[in-house]
Amino acid sequence: MIVAMPGEFDFIEWVRSQHKPSAFVPVPQGDDLAVIRWLADDLLLIGVDQVLDGVHFDSKIHSPRSIGRKAMNRNLSDCAAMACVPAVAVTTAALPRGIGLDYAKELYLGLRDAADPFDCTIVGGDTGSWDGKLVLTVTILGRSGDIQPITRSGAKAGDGIYVTGPLGGSILGRHMTFEPRIALARELAATGRVTAMIDLSDGLSRDLPHICRQSGVGAVIEAERVPIHADALTLSQDGRSQLDHALNDGEDHELLLTGRLEGLGLPVTRVGKITSRAEILLTREGKTEALTAAGWEHRL
Amino acid sequence: MIVAMPGEFDFIEWVRSQHKPSAFVPVPQGDDLAVIRWLADDLLLIGVDQVLDGVHFDSKIHSPRSIGRKAMNRNLSDCAAMACVPAVAVTTAALPRGIGLDYAKELYLGLRDAADPFDCTIVGGDTGSWDGKLVLTVTILGRSGDIQPITRSGAKAGDGIYVTGPLGGSILGRHMTFEPRIALARELAATGRVTAMIDLSDGLSRDLPHICRQSGVGAVIEAERVPIHADALTLSQDGRSQLDHALNDGEDHELLLTGRLEGLGLPVTRVGKITSRAEILLTREGKTEALTAAGWEHRL
Repeated sequence: MIVAMPGEFDFIEWVRSQHKPSAFVPVPQGDDLAVIRWLADDLLLIGVDQVLDGVHFDSKIHSPRSIGRKAMNRNLSDCAAMACVPAVAVTTAALPRGIGLDYAKELYLGLRDAADPFDCTIVGGDTGSWDGKLVLTVTILGRSGDIQPITRSGAKAGDGIYVTGPLGGSILGRHMTFEPRIALARELAATGRVTAMIDLSDGLSRDLPHICRQSGVGAVIEAERVPIHADALTLSQDGRSQLDHALNDGEDHELLLTGRLEGLGLPVTRVGKITSRAEILLTREGKTEALTAAGWEHRL
Repeated sequence: MIVAMPGEFDFIEWVRSQHKPSAFVPVPQGDDLAVIRWLADDLLLIGVDQVLDGVHFDSKIHSPRSIGRKAMNRNLSDCAAMACVPAVAVTTAALPRGIGLDYAKELYLGLRDAADPFDCTIVGGDTGSWDGKLVLTVTILGRSGDIQPITRSGAKAGDGIYVTGPLGGSILGRHMTFEPRIALARELAATGRVTAMIDLSDGLSRDLPHICRQSGVGAVIEAERVPIHADALTLSQDGRSQLDHALNDGEDHELLLTGRLEGLGLPVTRVGKITSRAEILLTREGKTEALTAAGWEHRL
């Protein structure tokens, strides 16, 4: 079989030429696996996230560079949710056949655009082409770096519930361009007053129940306190209210956290409180109703 | 938006119910990232591999269980190539919409079929459904476990070249059912006599050049010594010779290694030797020709 150029190995060679040295990586790239010297004091945090054409981006609209950025930033946002420091990533790309070397390079450069500011090193990956649509995955390794990871399971009755920015309407563009809140997450966690944290990927109404269930608590959200993004206002012309968008739209990638943060002057907005009853409520104009999970879920 | 059941979270709940405890994982699953306590003495090896419908398997023919097994075994074979011990994995699945919860479970059970015998724990993942074909990825973390990782770059002139089993014709079925050579790889590496190693995923003619280039050496393969699998004989009815299949077919997932292993009684077959000239040759019936790389390469 004669292989047409450019092929997988041209791309791999090019990627290797882009490599930045890292203190973590004693063995040069180019082996079956990358070799990492992990620091003994650091807990290792690991997660993986995929972006799929037509679900998380639209390759007819979004540039490969922005798709690469989003794929990496989703994982960096998971690092923020755990208050860890991104260290190392590996990635895969399933490329539509014939898409070309330049497109693949732009995807990689998008991944690097997002990872480089955090000194997160891409140490390996797997590239293939197929008669299918574009899929990118990023696996990220974070290190605890002197801050105990913040889980979803530490919320306690009486804690405040906070978000790090205005919510809703990310589909207008922010879902491709959000910035992972890593520095803020570390600042918050370093206070020792954060009890649980998650990043808002599926919408507040769907992500808050993860904290409540895993912490064995309930919550009350005060509608008037929820910071609403201008995009949610714009989108509300579709008949769903601004608040509906702020509570239920996905991919804000702001942090949702619980704890006792009053008086610390931190840039977070209190939106409610944790309760001991296992129910999640919304108060609005003096009335109380159940806050039903209506955010994004993939259907199998 | 009302979400139809069964959905992503049903699957995630089910996966969590399947979790096996692990010494590596101090924090229970269910967070943005899994938390791992890495052992200070161990180097960490990391890699990722994807399997794509129509490229690495055919979902019309192969069962989801066998697809899951292959996805994991490809990564375990990378661990074998580095002589490390698989420890932890994370996975993604991009599922064709409507494929159903039972299919997703079978994929996961296939991953577990392959990982469990090595006590390799699946600690996290990401599942999504889309209007596309099935993609599975596995990221694997291996630990060096008192054996220095074997890279591709240590081969020296005069070393023998060895393979761990017969080659060719894996497309007849073995590409779905191969066993990762981890125990043998560890046994080989523990001798201290292995200088370079790789797993045969793209075919000997394409994988040997990786060792030669990264080691700065050449090689001579002796055609008469290459162990040929019965599948290559069967396939040779297509007009390509058995030897052609053995040298050029992909996905054998046997190990290709170099070193000085004579007299150790190890279950490997010597197929040639490393030379100082930067060329890769094939001797056959007393004649010498260039061994051209004709194995599998993805085209972009």
